[in-house]
Amino acid sequence: MGTLKHLLDFQDLNRGWVEDLFETTRLMQEVLERPVKKVPALQGFTVATAFFEPSTRTKTSFELAARRLSADVVSFAVGGSSLSKGESYRDTLLTLEAMRIDAYVIRTSAPGLVHQATHWLSGSIINAGDGRRSHPSQALLDAFTLLEALGSLEGKKIAIVGDVLHSRVARSNAELLPMLGASVWAVGPATLMPETLAGATLTHNLNEALQDADAVMVLRVQNERMESGLLPSLREYIDGYQVTEERLSPARPKASVLHPGPMNRDIEIENAVADGSRSLIRRQVTVGMAVRMAILYHLLVGRAA
Amino acid sequence: MGTLKHLLDFQDLNRGWVEDLFETTRLMQEVLERPVKKVPALQGFTVATAFFEPSTRTKTSFELAARRLSADVVSFAVGGSSLSKGESYRDTLLTLEAMRIDAYVIRTSAPGLVHQATHWLSGSIINAGDGRRSHPSQALLDAFTLLEALGSLEGKKIAIVGDVLHSRVARSNAELLPMLGASVWAVGPATLMPETLAGATLTHNLNEALQDADAVMVLRVQNERMESGLLPSLREYIDGYQVTEERLSPARPKASVLHPGPMNRDIEIENAVADGSRSLIRRQVTVGMAVRMAILYHLLVGRAA
Amino acid sequence: MGTLKHLLDFQDLNRGWVEDLFETTRLMQEVLERPVKKVPALQGFTVATAFFEPSTRTKTSFELAARRLSADVVSFAVGGSSLSKGESYRDTLLTLEAMRIDAYVIRTSAPGLVHQATHWLSGSIINAGDGRRSHPSQALLDAFTLLEALGSLEGKKIAIVGDVLHSRVARSNAELLPMLGASVWAVGPATLMPETLAGATLTHNLNEALQDADAVMVLRVQNERMESGLLPSLREYIDGYQVTEERLSPARPKASVLHPGPMNRDIEIENAVADGSRSLIRRQVTVGMAVRMAILYHLLVGRAA
Repeated sequence: MGTLKHLLDFQDLNRGWVEDLFETTRLMQEVLERPVKKVPALQGFTVATAFFEPSTRTKTSFELAARRLSADVVSFAVGGSSLSKGESYRDTLLTLEAMRIDAYVIRTSAPGLVHQATHWLSGSIINAGDGRRSHPSQALLDAFTLLEALGSLEGKKIAIVGDVLHSRVARSNAELLPMLGASVWAVGPATLMPETLAGATLTHNLNEALQDADAVMVLRVQNERMESGLLPSLREYIDGYQVTEERLSPARPKASVLHPGPMNRDIEIENAVADGSRSLIRRQVTVGMAVRMAILYHLLVGRAA
Repeated sequence: MGTLKHLLDFQDLNRGWVEDLFETTRLMQEVLERPVKKVPALQGFTVATAFFEPSTRTKTSFELAARRLSADVVSFAVGGSSLSKGESYRDTLLTLEAMRIDAYVIRTSAPGLVHQATHWLSGSIINAGDGRRSHPSQALLDAFTLLEALGSLEGKKIAIVGDVLHSRVARSNAELLPMLGASVWAVGPATLMPETLAGATLTHNLNEALQDADAVMVLRVQNERMESGLLPSLREYIDGYQVTEERLSPARPKASVLHPGPMNRDIEIENAVADGSRSLIRRQVTVGMAVRMAILYHLLVGRAA
Repeated sequence: MGTLKHLLDFQDLNRGWVEDLFETTRLMQEVLERPVKKVPALQGFTVATAFFEPSTRTKTSFELAARRLSADVVSFAVGGSSLSKGESYRDTLLTLEAMRIDAYVIRTSAPGLVHQATHWLSGSIINAGDGRRSHPSQALLDAFTLLEALGSLEGKKIAIVGDVLHSRVARSNAELLPMLGASVWAVGPATLMPETLAGATLTHNLNEALQDADAVMVLRVQNERMESGLLPSLREYIDGYQVTEERLSPARPKASVLHPGPMNRDIEIENAVADGSRSLIRRQVTVGMAVRMAILYHLLVGRAA
């Protein structure tokens, strides 16, 4: 068990840490299979969720993970919060700090905020998504899901499809998956692709990206973005990049399909693919619960030991 | 103890199941009278509330019922949820499913959704109100409250007054109360009455409905509906159907008065009636807590045994 | 341990009760220093927060205080609540009452509501802010913070600066601090000062108020109020009453600075003061947790004994 205090991105992490975490994840999966899905590991600890951007899915997953470890959970709502009264992020977080919080799960659109927060707060910080930058718990659950399906990531080809430019999920996976031996390809329309993406080979050619891919990770299209007049239009996106059964044919026959959710069915992903036999989309959510329990345990108890 | 998995409506239920549930309700009432109002019955179980229509009252009642059985509670908020990002009900519920939820308490305006959901989800589903159709936990608490007051429902006359057309409370009570031996009358202005209501005798004549009634159930008026220009106006409604002390005179002298809440005082119910000695309106809420504890226990532990 | 049932204001309280509470507060502080920051004191009790005015800070503090005493917490949200469907405060609170709540933490803009509620509800009521009138838990945490810093309040001078007219924090502190031996001065621009304030000496002269002060309590400026065209403008307020390092020079050299939060930095308080060595602003929040645990314990278990 490592002594990592925060989970912000994959810069300070190595493969050993990730493999330790996945071992803990397997133990948490066993807990989740029991009739009594709860352990007293974090009894008396307090976990705060501070979601400055809305997200029911990730927030619920972390909160339930914390409760199943017997932690107390404080959900710091943005809507009615002091931020809306003009308080700074820093003061808002320092107020939580003063309430003796052990771990903060933070989502924000403010780049760099979670890193800055490590200087303000004495508790552990978990980055639950910061702007376009990172979403490490998502990448960890994606990797674990892929490991379950593929056995190993060594030498495997993973294609990430869609709005790569704005995607923290793409960025975090491009950092993590190569660490575990996989090669990552990222593909999307020109206006939605970054110039470079550390850890990934970029292309606009969907066929090339999917050729012999062991798994395909479909990104969520932000409707708002499409409708803002930026190219491509939703119609053009669908015509060029929607992941369909037909378009998956160059990939390996049993190539897995992942999506971080929530899905826009029949936009970035064809219905038949979303619900098809190669879809691991719901498995991702289940794995996410165990991964997040492992993250909390690892940062809080691993650190204390 | 039966082996019912879901509580959707009263179609699949018989009197024996209801009487079993009421026996469990009495045990839960004892728990609620203790200084420590909590039992470990559902330790390690997770109950999710998914209210796609707002309702603090029913939601709070179910959440507190679950906590007093030591279950973990996840409140899936609609406001900030993925549904608002265009996700389907089905995908939203499947996401919860993947988090290993044991019971779902669902309120929705979408007719048929709770029934469909039984095909999607492996956990127990409790219908906490689906459109105009059913609200079984409300009818069960109404029936239990009436049993406490009247001893038995055999041969008793229960009058339901108001906007019967749009009322799931009326519909569910008309299904349940006759099963327990009562005769149900439903009364309201012509535009707010259905053509037929299974289990009930319909009339527009308030006097006739109240004549010798053992209990009167007042329905909530939807102000929005009245103000939409539909007849009757609020004034006409009050003049014709507001339940007042005076209008209750044809009923039995100690006839009980119920209301599912929240009340529009001096609209569908006269203040003096709401707070009068025959009002069981607050008792309904207290009974509701015990009934909902019994429902959760019955579906989750009854099923496991 | 006294037998107080409600905490509404300081009218019925004496110094002995406050000192008892502060003794319990010190015990709670010890709990909060442990790795397992939780005691089973209120196991099986239910605490409801009913915030009819938004406030994340105070609400979170009370909810976490209750959880760390092992109570169940029901958060009665205003947004989606029955109040928005036209239900009265009284009926809303009676609905909670019928769910067997042990303590209600109520914030409201309605003057007198918390006092009226003692006639409706059988549980304990804690006033978490009622209009301009009282905010006793805030004053108690302010007093405890001052006691920690100053050793005793006997003969100490405390200056309260800002919008005294609209401040329940000022009003409650002016009641409490003199009870503990302090003299209170309140200062602000003419349009934001009341004619009299029981327990305090009033002035418009900041220098006079700060002269030899042992502590300075800065009040939050309500931007909304300033922008309504009422004098002073924000600019005039800053020019005349912003608490700066320079303006603090007449106060005692180590005079403490408090603020109830959330702060408008560089409006009512200079950044350098907020983060300076004499600032106890974050300490207030930490103390607040222990004080609120003590309040809940005192009212609920003190009463039962």
